[in-house]
Amino acid sequence: MDQQKKNEIFTQAKTWILEAGERIKSKIDSPRSIQTKSNPNDLVTEMDQETEQFFANKIKDTYPEHYLLGEEGFGDEIEDLGGTVWIIDPIDGTMNFVHQKRNFAISIGIYHEGTGEIGLIYNVMEGILYTAKRGEGAYKNDSRLPDLSQDRPLKQSILALNTTWLIPENPYVDHKGMQELVKTLRSTRSYGSAALEFAFLAEGLLDGYLTMTLMPWDYAAGSILVREVGGIVTRADQSELDLLNKTTVLAGRSNIHEEIASEYVQLKQR
Amino acid sequence: MDQQKKNEIFTQAKTWILEAGERIKSKIDSPRSIQTKSNPNDLVTEMDQETEQFFANKIKDTYPEHYLLGEEGFGDEIEDLGGTVWIIDPIDGTMNFVHQKRNFAISIGIYHEGTGEIGLIYNVMEGILYTAKRGEGAYKNDSRLPDLSQDRPLKQSILALNTTWLIPENPYVDHKGMQELVKTLRSTRSYGSAALEFAFLAEGLLDGYLTMTLMPWDYAAGSILVREVGGIVTRADQSELDLLNKTTVLAGRSNIHEEIASEYVQLKQR
Repeated sequence: MDQQKKNEIFTQAKTWILEAGERIKSKIDSPRSIQTKSNPNDLVTEMDQETEQFFANKIKDTYPEHYLLGEEGFGDEIEDLGGTVWIIDPIDGTMNFVHQKRNFAISIGIYHEGTGEIGLIYNVMEGILYTAKRGEGAYKNDSRLPDLSQDRPLKQSILALNTTWLIPENPYVDHKGMQELVKTLRSTRSYGSAALEFAFLAEGLLDGYLTMTLMPWDYAAGSILVREVGGIVTRADQSELDLLNKTTVLAGRSNIHEEIASEYVQLKQR
Repeated sequence: MDQQKKNEIFTQAKTWILEAGERIKSKIDSPRSIQTKSNPNDLVTEMDQETEQFFANKIKDTYPEHYLLGEEGFGDEIEDLGGTVWIIDPIDGTMNFVHQKRNFAISIGIYHEGTGEIGLIYNVMEGILYTAKRGEGAYKNDSRLPDLSQDRPLKQSILALNTTWLIPENPYVDHKGMQELVKTLRSTRSYGSAALEFAFLAEGLLDGYLTMTLMPWDYAAGSILVREVGGIVTRADQSELDLLNKTTVLAGRSNIHEEIASEYVQLKQR
């Protein structure tokens, strides 16, 4: 992607994400209707839909040649990552949005010919905007985030990990490996928003993040952010992310990424 | 406790907790020495110790007849809860303090003849002070917290629960019951600070909090806060907390508290 074009799109995306955040914030205490999607705990509100519609309109008006891949279906049917694609989660952490009225984010990853060029994650209620341009580092508001230190061993590491993956019946990963991992780590955390968990990892609050079911919009921005501070992001078996399908994700400091994948993650045959 | 005295102590404690918070904040980026206590993941820093010493000096000077039970041992040897006892965790969530430089709290519970009269939890880096006086409600800064709603069933509830309790080798609780609980719940969270988890429960961000090993200073303030919004706080087997020993704790909305304890928690014989 041409540098001038990249800067222009970045500035535009930043303006829109802040505007969308203001709209959500101004209606945070309004009564809302909550629907469920794939299961009773997969929540969606009219605010998710309105926010995605907001971005869909903006992109269509300003960049009619760009594509949009969005969680709520206001975008395009996409079969490959040719051209410029905006991958958007209008509210990442909808359960937090509904139950907590905070700890959710807007996530925008912008890909050009399959390469992640721009990532933005906006922690709406805290007013913190994480941004990254490929090759130019990651930022928390106006402060550049330092590279992740690489000298903390796994036993002193904190990993974002859901309790779900320690249960035998989960269809994705052998729970015993996950239990061994928990015994090895210093601790685990769970915040309920994938985008924020990537952002916290990029900030150095977490050392890694492991999960079994993310959609492209959950990690499109976060993976760019984490890579810009020297972290590694792959599927849980260390293969490359494809950005078009539901997938496992393992993100972390480079010195623990391979160890977690090879020593603790045994994916189930599906 | 006499109302006038209670108000005076509350105001004093509030002044001190904010001052202690400022001291921590001003040194948040200073290099620090980190020791471990009971195990390699039980961290303590000179800031935990300095902060407790700060409170110990203040209390001794101002209320020489009061007792202090503190995490770092600058208080008194206490065998019962007679008189007025300040139960203080100078930094609750020391691991977060060390790794994240946020998401930790100062916790102060003030008990008179065994009854919790005043609770304060200060989320230092966010500048949010949670307070409660027995019978007078709980506050987040200057806003009174509403009573917890009691109509959300367990399957729509979010519980603060560590991954540790889902592991067979944990010595406290049958892991299978915990796994069943996770399958029943809407979701779990883990923030790494017991005091903040009580505060988030009091705020309604969480529906419950279950853990197997808390010390009195971890829940002395939080339990007062949660009770003031209509929540229930007991040991995990529904027996009363004694505030002098390490214990299990189950806190939650009244409509799910009994269900969790009786249907999912099977404590191991120890």
